[in-house]
Amino acid sequence: MSETGLSIGFIGLGIMGLPMAANLVQGGHRVRGFARSEQTRAKAAEQGIEAVGSTAEAVDGADVVITVLPDSPDVVEVGLGEGGVLGHTAAGVLWIDMSTIDPDTARDLHARSTAQGVRFLDAPVSGGEAGAIEGQLSIMVGGEAEVLESARGLLDLLGTTIVHVGPAGSGQVVKAANQIVVAGNIQILAEALVFLRGQDADLERALEVIGGGLAGSTVLQRKRESLLAGDFRPGFRARLHHKDLGIVQRSARAAGVGLPATALVTQLMQTLVARGDGDLDHSALYAQCAELNAVKP
Amino acid sequence: MSETGLSIGFIGLGIMGLPMAANLVQGGHRVRGFARSEQTRAKAAEQGIEAVGSTAEAVDGADVVITVLPDSPDVVEVGLGEGGVLGHTAAGVLWIDMSTIDPDTARDLHARSTAQGVRFLDAPVSGGEAGAIEGQLSIMVGGEAEVLESARGLLDLLGTTIVHVGPAGSGQVVKAANQIVVAGNIQILAEALVFLRGQDADLERALEVIGGGLAGSTVLQRKRESLLAGDFRPGFRARLHHKDLGIVQRSARAAGVGLPATALVTQLMQTLVARGDGDLDHSALYAQCAELNAVKP
Repeated sequence: MSETGLSIGFIGLGIMGLPMAANLVQGGHRVRGFARSEQTRAKAAEQGIEAVGSTAEAVDGADVVITVLPDSPDVVEVGLGEGGVLGHTAAGVLWIDMSTIDPDTARDLHARSTAQGVRFLDAPVSGGEAGAIEGQLSIMVGGEAEVLESARGLLDLLGTTIVHVGPAGSGQVVKAANQIVVAGNIQILAEALVFLRGQDADLERALEVIGGGLAGSTVLQRKRESLLAGDFRPGFRARLHHKDLGIVQRSARAAGVGLPATALVTQLMQTLVARGDGDLDHSALYAQCAELNAVKP
Repeated sequence: MSETGLSIGFIGLGIMGLPMAANLVQGGHRVRGFARSEQTRAKAAEQGIEAVGSTAEAVDGADVVITVLPDSPDVVEVGLGEGGVLGHTAAGVLWIDMSTIDPDTARDLHARSTAQGVRFLDAPVSGGEAGAIEGQLSIMVGGEAEVLESARGLLDLLGTTIVHVGPAGSGQVVKAANQIVVAGNIQILAEALVFLRGQDADLERALEVIGGGLAGSTVLQRKRESLLAGDFRPGFRARLHHKDLGIVQRSARAAGVGLPATALVTQLMQTLVARGDGDLDHSALYAQCAELNAVKP
């Protein structure tokens, strides 16, 4: 599928999905996208996406279906529900789910797709809105290697790091591991900052020297300015990271592994959402830790 | 002190201290180092360091005294004990303590030094043995800014990132914060690896894609190969990191801040030492987490 002119049905024209669909149009493909609201319909049209009013209309006759949805139940509903993807796709069609969902759900969707001759990949992404706009996402792909190879021409339009990580569900497993590390690195950096604040240290100078050594991280690099400014506008919303940590929790329990620090960080992300900060950036774990200690973030 | 030919008394010719002292000799200074054992004496002589048999002999008549010792009590003993630094140095001498010790102890040594006209800097380092050998340490300096400026010529021989982080004790505060982040980032990466192992994921491919995004870190970059190989030879010994987390714990309590994830990681570093792995690299937190879950590291 390195050829152009494929017909693509696209479900999920949100913050991530819309620029991804636009990049597929730029790559020479015909994209029909399901848009519920007039506003999304207009934005989609601007990008050369043909907006339609239902999943069925988007996927009927498509060569490829792409879903970018918030959570597992959304993908199940769009995939298996009435008027859903599997009810309207013929054998041979490729369905790429790029949402972040439960690995078990991804495996189930793979099995159901395979049973009717539809090829399925779980291909969650990281890189945020900027990565989606610039076509520079990291894409972790689970499923048959040869199916990924047939889709590489399309995925190359969306990302720069595209790695086949294993059989069906593996993309979601790796994405979950990724979300463990990001949340953990944010929380531990937050605590180091509160420790420094508690002793009236110069945060800016401290982070300069900390970032240059073994304590350096991409979180520190990318969030440094906003953390120092106490600016917690999203970025990646805490409630979405909280959702992802729920996936981690269920998957870890199913796999039978205990992860003590991850469990604690999961609870702290939960309290961040509980206190009404779910729509702040996930780095607001720092604001919570600072407030808990009555120090200024 | 950018001039050469200073007389430097050096206490602590260990894994870090010896190459640091050697770099001072290379920089054109006369270094007298206290070496207890015949072996250290021989190694020191090879590097052009004049080995002497006591702290008093090393520091008598020196322009600058440098200490690089394992822990707070060592520095107190060498500094204040009989035949120690403050008993054998005249007003105007500069004492740079480059050990990692309690901020409170550093403040106390600063006060006692100042009382007798000795200038004192707390200047702990990060960068490990390799950084010490190559003169590429990061140095976090607490104390008077003008004292640091007078010492910069010397410190430039030892490190590449030399940052004045605040008044006396601040260097140790920032070093403690640094050790929080390193331990936390190791533990959370360890848990992500155990999560992946528990689901039979391909670790090498997973880390390739994880390292490229927001989950990237210097720990992941530098420890990746050894973690994948299950190689836990030091590097930085767990028991020394455990010692550093003790400093964190006392400082945080004194400052009155609660750090939940740091507390947990501190306990896990403690159990790593308790089970007899204190002489392994601190990344053996992964071995411990894997074993706890009966998965192969």
